[in-house]
Amino acid sequence: MKIHDAPSFPNPFRVRVVLAEKALASQVEFVKVDLPAAEHKQAAFLAMNPTGTVPVLELDDGTFISECTAITEYLDNLDGEPTLTGRTARQKAMIHMMQKRAESELIDAVGIYFHHATTGLGDRVLPYKSPEWAARTEWGRMHRDKALQGMRYFDKVLQSQPYVAGDAFSMADITVLGGLMFAGYENIIPVPEEYTALLAWKNRMYERPSVKNPA
Amino acid sequence: MKIHDAPSFPNPFRVRVVLAEKALASQVEFVKVDLPAAEHKQAAFLAMNPTGTVPVLELDDGTFISECTAITEYLDNLDGEPTLTGRTARQKAMIHMMQKRAESELIDAVGIYFHHATTGLGDRVLPYKSPEWAARTEWGRMHRDKALQGMRYFDKVLQSQPYVAGDAFSMADITVLGGLMFAGYENIIPVPEEYTALLAWKNRMYERPSVKNPA
Repeated sequence: MKIHDAPSFPNPFRVRVVLAEKALASQVEFVKVDLPAAEHKQAAFLAMNPTGTVPVLELDDGTFISECTAITEYLDNLDGEPTLTGRTARQKAMIHMMQKRAESELIDAVGIYFHHATTGLGDRVLPYKSPEWAARTEWGRMHRDKALQGMRYFDKVLQSQPYVAGDAFSMADITVLGGLMFAGYENIIPVPEEYTALLAWKNRMYERPSVKNPA
Repeated sequence: MKIHDAPSFPNPFRVRVVLAEKALASQVEFVKVDLPAAEHKQAAFLAMNPTGTVPVLELDDGTFISECTAITEYLDNLDGEPTLTGRTARQKAMIHMMQKRAESELIDAVGIYFHHATTGLGDRVLPYKSPEWAARTEWGRMHRDKALQGMRYFDKVLQSQPYVAGDAFSMADITVLGGLMFAGYENIIPVPEEYTALLAWKNRMYERPSVKNPA
Protein backbone atom coordinates (compact mmCIF):
# COMPACT_ATOMS: atom_id res chain seq x y z
CA MET A 1 0.00 0.00 0.00
CA LYS A 2 1.02 3.61 -0.56
CA ILE A 3 -0.18 6.73 1.21
CA HIS A 4 0.05 9.98 -0.73
CA ASP A 5 0.18 12.74 1.86
CA ALA A 6 2.20 15.46 3.54
CA PRO A 7 3.39 14.62 7.04
CA SER A 8 2.29 16.84 9.94
CA PHE A 9 -0.80 18.16 8.15
CA PRO A 10 -4.08 17.50 10.01
CA ASN A 11 -5.85 15.00 7.73
CA PRO A 12 -2.66 13.01 7.03
CA PHE A 13 -2.15 12.96 10.82
CA ARG A 14 -5.55 11.27 11.21
CA VAL A 15 -4.63 8.37 8.94
CA ARG A 16 -1.12 8.09 10.39
CA VAL A 17 -2.61 7.66 13.88
CA VAL A 18 -4.85 4.92 12.45
CA LEU A 19 -1.81 3.18 10.94
CA ALA A 20 -0.05 3.33 14.31
CA GLU A 21 -3.14 2.06 16.18
CA LYS A 22 -3.45 -0.87 13.77
CA ALA A 23 0.33 -1.53 13.64
CA LEU A 24 0.24 -1.25 9.85
CA ALA A 25 2.90 1.41 9.33
CA SER A 26 5.51 -1.07 8.07
CA GLN A 27 3.16 -2.15 5.26
CA VAL A 28 2.87 1.36 3.85
CA GLU A 29 5.11 3.39 1.57
CA PHE A 30 4.63 7.15 1.95
CA VAL A 31 4.67 9.37 -1.13
CA LYS A 32 5.05 13.06 -0.34
CA VAL A 33 2.60 15.54 -1.90
CA ASP A 34 3.86 19.15 -2.06
CA LEU A 35 0.84 21.06 -0.73
CA PRO A 36 2.32 24.60 -0.71
CA ALA A 37 3.22 24.02 -4.41
CA ALA A 38 -0.45 23.07 -4.99
CA GLU A 39 0.50 19.60 -6.24
CA HIS A 40 -2.88 18.36 -4.94
CA LYS A 41 -4.68 20.69 -7.38
CA GLN A 42 -2.80 19.43 -10.49
CA ALA A 43 -4.04 16.87 -13.02
CA ALA A 44 -1.82 14.00 -11.85
CA PHE A 45 -3.13 14.22 -8.30
CA LEU A 46 -6.73 14.91 -9.33
CA ALA A 47 -6.66 11.67 -11.34
CA MET A 48 -6.14 9.88 -8.00
CA ASN A 49 -8.60 12.02 -6.04
CA PRO A 50 -10.87 14.42 -7.96
CA THR A 51 -11.68 16.38 -4.79
CA GLY A 52 -8.02 17.40 -4.49
CA THR A 53 -7.39 16.50 -0.86
CA VAL A 54 -4.79 14.48 1.04
CA PRO A 55 -4.34 11.77 2.15
CA VAL A 56 -4.98 9.19 -0.58
CA LEU A 57 -4.47 5.46 -0.03
CA GLU A 58 -3.26 3.54 -3.09
CA LEU A 59 -3.85 -0.20 -2.97
CA ASP A 60 -1.46 -2.63 -4.65
CA ASP A 61 -3.92 -3.15 -7.53
CA GLY A 62 -3.91 0.58 -8.28
CA THR A 63 -7.23 1.43 -6.59
CA PHE A 64 -7.26 4.86 -4.94
CA ILE A 65 -9.20 5.52 -1.75
CA SER A 66 -9.56 9.05 -0.44
CA GLU A 67 -11.44 10.63 2.48
CA CYS A 68 -10.18 9.84 5.98
CA THR A 69 -13.37 8.03 7.00
CA ALA A 70 -13.13 5.69 4.01
CA ILE A 71 -9.39 5.05 4.49
CA THR A 72 -9.99 4.37 8.18
CA GLU A 73 -12.82 1.92 7.38
CA TYR A 74 -10.44 0.09 5.01
CA LEU A 75 -7.49 -0.13 7.39
CA ASP A 76 -9.63 -0.93 10.40
CA ASN A 77 -11.45 -3.80 8.68
CA LEU A 78 -8.40 -5.29 6.93
CA ASP A 79 -7.94 -7.98 9.53
CA GLY A 80 -11.64 -8.40 10.16
CA GLU A 81 -11.33 -7.04 13.67
CA PRO A 82 -12.30 -3.41 13.73
CA THR A 83 -11.14 -1.49 16.77
CA LEU A 84 -11.70 2.10 15.60
CA THR A 85 -15.01 1.92 13.69
CA GLY A 86 -17.11 -0.29 15.98
CA ARG A 87 -18.31 -3.89 15.94
CA THR A 88 -22.01 -3.69 16.72
CA ALA A 89 -24.67 -1.71 14.85
CA ARG A 90 -24.93 0.65 17.78
CA GLN A 91 -21.18 1.21 18.07
CA LYS A 92 -20.85 1.85 14.34
CA ALA A 93 -23.71 4.35 14.49
CA MET A 94 -22.37 6.29 17.48
CA ILE A 95 -18.87 6.42 15.99
CA HIS A 96 -20.09 7.58 12.57
CA MET A 97 -22.37 10.19 14.17
CA MET A 98 -19.52 11.63 16.23
CA GLN A 99 -17.11 11.33 13.28
CA LYS A 100 -19.44 13.46 11.17
CA ARG A 101 -19.82 16.03 13.97
CA ALA A 102 -16.04 16.11 14.49
CA GLU A 103 -15.72 16.92 10.79
CA SER A 104 -18.56 19.39 10.21
CA GLU A 105 -18.41 21.16 13.58
CA LEU A 106 -14.63 21.19 14.08
CA ILE A 107 -11.97 20.11 11.59
CA ASP A 108 -13.87 21.24 8.47
CA ALA A 109 -14.78 24.55 10.15
CA VAL A 110 -11.12 25.14 11.06
CA GLY A 111 -10.17 24.25 7.48
CA ILE A 112 -12.62 26.73 5.95
CA TYR A 113 -11.32 29.43 8.29
CA PHE A 114 -7.69 28.58 7.51
CA HIS A 115 -8.08 28.41 3.73
CA HIS A 116 -10.50 31.32 3.30
CA ALA A 117 -9.80 33.84 6.04
CA THR A 118 -6.03 33.46 6.62
CA THR A 119 -3.16 33.28 4.13
CA GLY A 120 -3.74 29.52 4.16
CA LEU A 121 -1.24 27.52 2.13
CA GLY A 122 -0.02 30.64 0.36
CA ASP A 123 0.25 32.18 -3.08
CA ARG A 124 0.75 29.06 -5.15
CA VAL A 125 -2.50 27.50 -3.95
CA LEU A 126 -4.57 30.70 -4.36
CA PRO A 127 -4.96 30.47 -8.19
CA TYR A 128 -6.91 27.24 -7.72
CA LYS A 129 -9.52 29.00 -5.63
CA SER A 130 -12.60 30.44 -7.26
CA PRO A 131 -12.88 33.94 -8.75
CA GLU A 132 -15.47 34.79 -6.09
CA TRP A 133 -12.64 34.66 -3.60
CA ALA A 134 -13.57 37.87 -1.78
CA ALA A 135 -17.02 36.56 -0.92
CA ARG A 136 -15.41 33.67 0.87
CA THR A 137 -13.47 35.75 3.34
CA GLU A 138 -16.42 36.71 5.50
CA TRP A 139 -17.75 33.16 5.25
CA GLY A 140 -14.33 31.94 6.34
CA ARG A 141 -14.32 34.26 9.34
CA MET A 142 -17.70 32.93 10.47
CA HIS A 143 -16.18 29.47 10.64
CA ARG A 144 -13.84 30.53 13.40
CA ASP A 145 -16.94 30.93 15.58
CA LYS A 146 -18.33 27.64 14.33
CA ALA A 147 -15.09 25.87 15.30
CA LEU A 148 -15.23 27.46 18.76
CA GLN A 149 -18.82 26.25 19.15
CA GLY A 150 -17.60 22.82 18.09
CA MET A 151 -14.95 22.90 20.82
CA ARG A 152 -17.63 23.85 23.34
CA TYR A 153 -19.77 20.94 22.18
CA PHE A 154 -16.97 18.39 22.49
CA ASP A 155 -16.01 19.82 25.89
CA LYS A 156 -19.57 19.14 27.03
CA VAL A 157 -19.52 15.61 25.57
CA LEU A 158 -16.23 14.85 27.32
CA GLN A 159 -17.54 16.05 30.69
CA SER A 160 -19.63 12.90 30.91
CA GLN A 161 -17.75 10.23 28.95
CA PRO A 162 -14.07 9.32 28.51
CA TYR A 163 -14.00 9.26 24.70
CA VAL A 164 -15.74 11.21 21.94
CA ALA A 165 -18.06 8.35 20.91
CA GLY A 166 -18.52 6.79 24.35
CA ASP A 167 -16.50 4.35 26.43
CA ALA A 168 -13.83 3.41 23.87
CA PHE A 169 -11.24 5.18 21.75
CA SER A 170 -12.40 5.42 18.11
CA MET A 171 -11.80 7.24 14.85
CA ALA A 172 -13.98 10.06 16.20
CA ASP A 173 -11.32 10.81 18.86
CA ILE A 174 -8.68 10.94 16.14
CA THR A 175 -10.79 13.41 14.13
CA VAL A 176 -11.32 15.74 17.09
CA LEU A 177 -7.58 15.55 17.77
CA GLY A 178 -6.90 16.43 14.12
CA GLY A 179 -9.25 19.38 14.47
CA LEU A 180 -7.46 20.67 17.58
CA MET A 181 -4.09 20.13 15.89
CA PHE A 182 -5.29 22.19 12.90
CA ALA A 183 -6.72 24.90 15.19
CA GLY A 184 -3.37 25.00 17.01
CA TYR A 185 -1.40 25.59 13.79
CA GLU A 186 0.16 29.03 14.27
CA ASN A 187 -2.36 29.29 17.10
CA ILE A 188 -5.11 30.33 14.68
CA ILE A 189 -7.96 29.24 17.00
CA PRO A 190 -6.67 28.57 20.53
CA VAL A 191 -8.83 26.27 22.66
CA PRO A 192 -10.46 28.47 25.36
CA GLU A 193 -9.02 27.66 28.80
CA GLU A 194 -12.48 27.07 30.29
CA TYR A 195 -12.94 23.95 28.13
CA THR A 196 -11.19 21.92 30.80
CA ALA A 197 -12.75 18.56 29.90
CA LEU A 198 -11.65 18.92 26.28
CA LEU A 199 -8.14 19.97 27.29
CA ALA A 200 -7.81 17.13 29.85
CA TRP A 201 -8.96 14.62 27.21
CA LYS A 202 -6.44 16.08 24.74
CA ASN A 203 -3.63 15.60 27.27
CA ARG A 204 -4.73 12.01 27.87
CA MET A 205 -4.84 11.37 24.12
CA TYR A 206 -1.29 12.61 23.69
CA GLU A 207 -0.18 9.91 26.10
CA ARG A 208 -1.31 7.23 23.62
CA PRO A 209 1.66 5.83 21.66
CA SER A 210 -0.22 6.20 18.34
CA VAL A 211 -0.85 9.90 18.93
CA LYS A 212 2.58 10.59 20.39
CA ASN A 213 4.27 8.77 17.52
CA PRO A 214 1.99 8.43 14.50
CA ALA A 215 3.26 6.52 11.45
CA MET B 1 -37.67 2.81 17.12
CA LYS B 2 -38.82 6.32 16.21
CA ILE B 3 -37.72 8.51 13.34
CA HIS B 4 -38.08 12.26 13.84
CA ASP B 5 -38.30 13.76 10.36
CA ALA B 6 -40.42 15.52 7.77
CA PRO B 7 -41.54 13.32 4.89
CA SER B 8 -40.50 14.26 1.34
CA PHE B 9 -37.48 16.29 2.44
CA PRO B 10 -34.16 15.07 0.98
CA ASN B 11 -32.33 13.74 4.03
CA PRO B 12 -35.44 12.07 5.50
CA PHE B 13 -35.91 10.50 2.04
CA ARG B 14 -32.45 8.92 2.32
CA VAL B 15 -33.29 7.12 5.57
CA ARG B 16 -36.76 6.16 4.37
CA VAL B 17 -35.24 4.44 1.33
CA VAL B 18 -32.90 2.58 3.70
CA LEU B 19 -35.89 1.47 5.80
CA ALA B 20 -37.64 0.20 2.66
CA GLU B 21 -34.49 -1.59 1.42
CA LYS B 22 -34.09 -3.32 4.79
CA ALA B 23 -37.84 -3.99 5.20
CA LEU B 24 -37.78 -2.24 8.57
CA ALA B 25 -40.56 0.31 8.01
CA SER B 26 -43.07 -1.55 10.17
CA GLN B 27 -40.70 -1.37 13.16
CA VAL B 28 -40.56 2.42 13.08
CA GLU B 29 -42.88 5.11 14.38
CA PHE B 30 -42.54 8.43 12.54
CA VAL B 31 -42.70 11.70 14.51
CA LYS B 32 -43.18 14.75 12.30
CA VAL B 33 -40.86 17.74 12.73
CA ASP B 34 -42.25 21.07 11.47
CA LEU B 35 -39.28 22.40 9.47
CA PRO B 36 -40.89 25.58 8.06
CA ALA B 37 -41.79 26.47 11.68
CA ALA B 38 -38.10 25.98 12.58
CA GLU B 39 -38.93 23.26 15.10
CA HIS B 40 -35.50 21.73 14.36
CA LYS B 41 -33.81 24.90 15.68
CA GLN B 42 -35.65 24.90 19.04
CA ALA B 43 -34.33 23.60 22.37
CA ALA B 44 -36.43 20.42 22.45
CA PHE B 45 -35.12 19.26 19.10
CA LEU B 46 -31.55 20.44 19.75
CA ALA B 47 -31.51 18.24 22.86
CA MET B 48 -31.93 15.27 20.51
CA ASN B 49 -29.54 16.57 17.85
CA PRO B 50 -27.37 19.60 18.64
CA THR B 51 -26.62 20.18 14.95
CA GLY B 52 -30.33 20.85 14.30
CA THR B 53 -30.89 18.57 11.32
CA VAL B 54 -33.40 15.86 10.41
CA PRO B 55 -33.74 12.92 10.46
CA VAL B 56 -33.03 11.65 13.98
CA LEU B 57 -33.39 7.99 14.95
CA GLU B 58 -34.55 7.40 18.53
CA LEU B 59 -33.82 3.94 19.90
CA ASP B 60 -36.13 2.28 22.42
CA ASP B 61 -33.68 3.02 25.25
CA GLY B 62 -33.82 6.76 24.48
CA THR B 63 -30.55 7.00 22.55
CA PHE B 64 -30.63 9.49 19.69
CA ILE B 65 -28.68 8.90 16.48
CA SER B 66 -28.44 11.64 13.87
CA GLU B 67 -26.60 12.00 10.54
CA CYS B 68 -27.79 9.85 7.66
CA THR B 69 -24.54 7.90 7.41
CA ALA B 70 -24.72 6.93 11.09
CA ILE B 71 -28.42 6.02 10.93
CA THR B 72 -27.77 3.94 7.81
CA GLU B 73 -24.87 2.12 9.49
CA TYR B 74 -27.20 1.30 12.39
CA LEU B 75 -30.12 0.04 10.33
CA ASP B 76 -27.93 -1.80 7.84
CA ASN B 77 -26.03 -3.69 10.55
CA LEU B 78 -29.02 -4.48 12.77
CA ASP B 79 -29.36 -8.00 11.44
CA GLY B 80 -25.64 -8.49 11.01
CA GLU B 81 -25.97 -8.65 7.25
CA PRO B 82 -25.14 -5.29 5.75
CA THR B 83 -26.35 -4.78 2.20
CA LEU B 84 -25.94 -1.00 1.87
CA THR B 85 -22.64 -0.30 3.67
CA GLY B 86 -20.44 -3.15 2.43
CA ARG B 87 -19.12 -6.40 3.86
CA THR B 88 -15.40 -6.38 3.05
CA ALA B 89 -12.84 -3.74 3.97
CA ARG B 90 -12.63 -2.70 0.33
CA GLN B 91 -16.41 -2.45 -0.13
CA LYS B 92 -16.78 -0.40 3.05
CA ALA B 93 -14.01 1.94 1.90
CA MET B 94 -15.41 2.49 -1.59
CA ILE B 95 -18.92 3.07 -0.25
CA HIS B 96 -17.76 5.53 2.42
CA MET B 97 -15.57 7.37 -0.11
CA MET B 98 -18.46 7.79 -2.54
CA GLN B 99 -20.87 8.58 0.30
CA LYS B 100 -18.64 11.45 1.38
CA ARG B 101 -18.34 12.71 -2.19
CA ALA B 102 -22.11 12.46 -2.69
CA GLU B 103 -22.49 14.65 0.38
CA SER B 104 -19.74 17.24 -0.08
CA GLU B 105 -19.93 17.53 -3.87
CA LEU B 106 -23.70 17.22 -4.32
CA ILE B 107 -26.35 17.12 -1.58
CA ASP B 108 -24.52 19.46 0.82
CA ALA B 109 -23.74 21.87 -2.04
CA VAL B 110 -27.39 21.90 -3.07
CA GLY B 111 -28.34 22.47 0.58
CA ILE B 112 -25.99 25.44 0.97
CA TYR B 113 -27.38 26.94 -2.24
CA PHE B 114 -30.99 26.33 -1.15
CA HIS B 115 -30.62 27.69 2.39
CA HIS B 116 -28.33 30.62 1.60
CA ALA B 117 -29.13 31.83 -1.91
CA THR B 118 -32.85 31.09 -2.25
CA THR B 119 -35.73 31.83 0.12
CA GLY B 120 -35.02 28.39 1.56
CA LEU B 121 -37.42 27.26 4.28
CA GLY B 122 -38.78 30.77 4.66
CA ASP B 123 -39.17 33.54 7.21
CA ARG B 124 -39.56 31.50 10.35
CA VAL B 125 -36.22 29.72 9.85
CA LEU B 126 -34.28 32.89 8.94
CA PRO B 127 -33.95 34.20 12.54
CA TYR B 128 -31.85 31.14 13.37
CA LYS B 129 -29.29 32.04 10.73
CA SER B 130 -26.28 34.14 11.59
CA PRO B 131 -26.14 37.94 11.58
CA GLU B 132 -23.58 37.76 8.76
CA TRP B 133 -26.40 36.54 6.54
CA ALA B 134 -25.60 38.81 3.62
CA ALA B 135 -22.09 37.41 3.31
CA ARG B 136 -23.58 33.99 2.84
CA THR B 137 -25.57 34.80 -0.24
CA GLU B 138 -22.63 34.94 -2.63
CA TRP B 139 -21.16 31.86 -0.99
CA GLY B 140 -24.51 30.14 -1.47
CA ARG B 141 -24.59 31.06 -5.15
CA MET B 142 -21.15 29.54 -5.67
CA HIS B 143 -22.53 26.24 -4.45
CA ARG B 144 -24.89 26.03 -7.39
CA ASP B 145 -21.79 25.66 -9.57
CA LYS B 146 -20.29 23.19 -7.13
CA ALA B 147 -23.43 21.05 -7.29
CA LEU B 148 -23.33 21.14 -11.10
CA GLN B 149 -19.69 20.02 -11.01
CA GLY B 150 -20.77 17.25 -8.68
CA MET B 151 -23.43 16.14 -11.17
CA ARG B 152 -20.76 16.12 -13.90
CA TYR B 153 -18.51 13.99 -11.70
CA PHE B 154 -21.22 11.41 -10.96
CA ASP B 155 -22.20 11.34 -14.63
CA LYS B 156 -18.60 10.39 -15.43
CA VAL B 157 -18.54 7.74 -12.70
CA LEU B 158 -21.78 6.22 -13.99
CA GLN B 159 -20.50 6.05 -17.57
CA SER B 160 -18.28 3.13 -16.54
CA GLN B 161 -20.08 1.41 -13.67
CA PRO B 162 -23.71 0.61 -12.86
CA TYR B 163 -23.81 2.06 -9.34
CA VAL B 164 -22.17 5.00 -7.60
CA ALA B 165 -19.76 2.87 -5.54
CA GLY B 166 -19.22 0.09 -8.10
CA ASP B 167 -21.13 -3.06 -9.02
CA ALA B 168 -23.77 -3.00 -6.27
CA PHE B 169 -26.45 -0.64 -5.00
CA SER B 170 -25.33 1.06 -1.76
CA MET B 171 -26.02 4.02 0.51
CA ALA B 172 -23.94 6.15 -1.85
CA ASP B 173 -26.60 5.68 -4.57
CA ILE B 174 -29.26 6.78 -2.10
CA THR B 175 -27.28 9.90 -1.24
CA VAL B 176 -26.80 10.90 -4.89
CA LEU B 177 -30.53 10.33 -5.41
CA GLY B 178 -31.27 12.55 -2.40
CA GLY B 179 -29.02 15.21 -3.91
CA LEU B 180 -30.84 15.09 -7.26
CA MET B 181 -34.20 15.15 -5.48
CA PHE B 182 -33.11 18.26 -3.55
CA ALA B 183 -31.76 19.89 -6.73
CA GLY B 184 -35.09 19.14 -8.41
CA TYR B 185 -37.10 20.86 -5.68
CA GLU B 186 -38.80 23.77 -7.47
CA ASN B 187 -36.27 22.99 -10.20
CA ILE B 188 -33.58 25.01 -8.40
CA ILE B 189 -30.68 23.20 -10.11
CA PRO B 190 -31.92 21.14 -13.08
CA VAL B 191 -29.63 18.27 -14.15
CA PRO B 192 -28.07 19.28 -17.52
CA GLU B 193 -29.47 17.11 -20.33
CA GLU B 194 -26.00 16.12 -21.50
CA TYR B 195 -25.42 14.14 -18.30
CA THR B 196 -27.07 11.14 -19.93
CA ALA B 197 -25.40 8.47 -17.79
CA LEU B 198 -26.53 10.20 -14.59
CA LEU B 199 -30.07 10.63 -15.91
CA ALA B 200 -30.28 7.01 -17.14
CA TRP B 201 -29.05 5.80 -13.74
CA LYS B 202 -31.64 8.01 -12.01
CA ASN B 203 -34.42 6.47 -14.11
CA ARG B 204 -33.18 2.98 -13.26
CA MET B 205 -33.07 3.86 -9.57
CA TYR B 206 -36.68 5.07 -9.64
CA GLU B 207 -37.67 1.58 -10.77
CA ARG B 208 -36.44 0.17 -7.45
CA PRO B 209 -39.37 -0.48 -5.07
CA SER B 210 -37.52 1.24 -2.18
CA VAL B 211 -37.04 4.43 -4.20
CA LYS B 212 -40.48 4.36 -5.78
CA ASN B 213 -42.13 3.77 -2.40
CA PRO B 214 -39.85 4.73 0.48
CA ALA B 215 -41.09 4.15 4.05
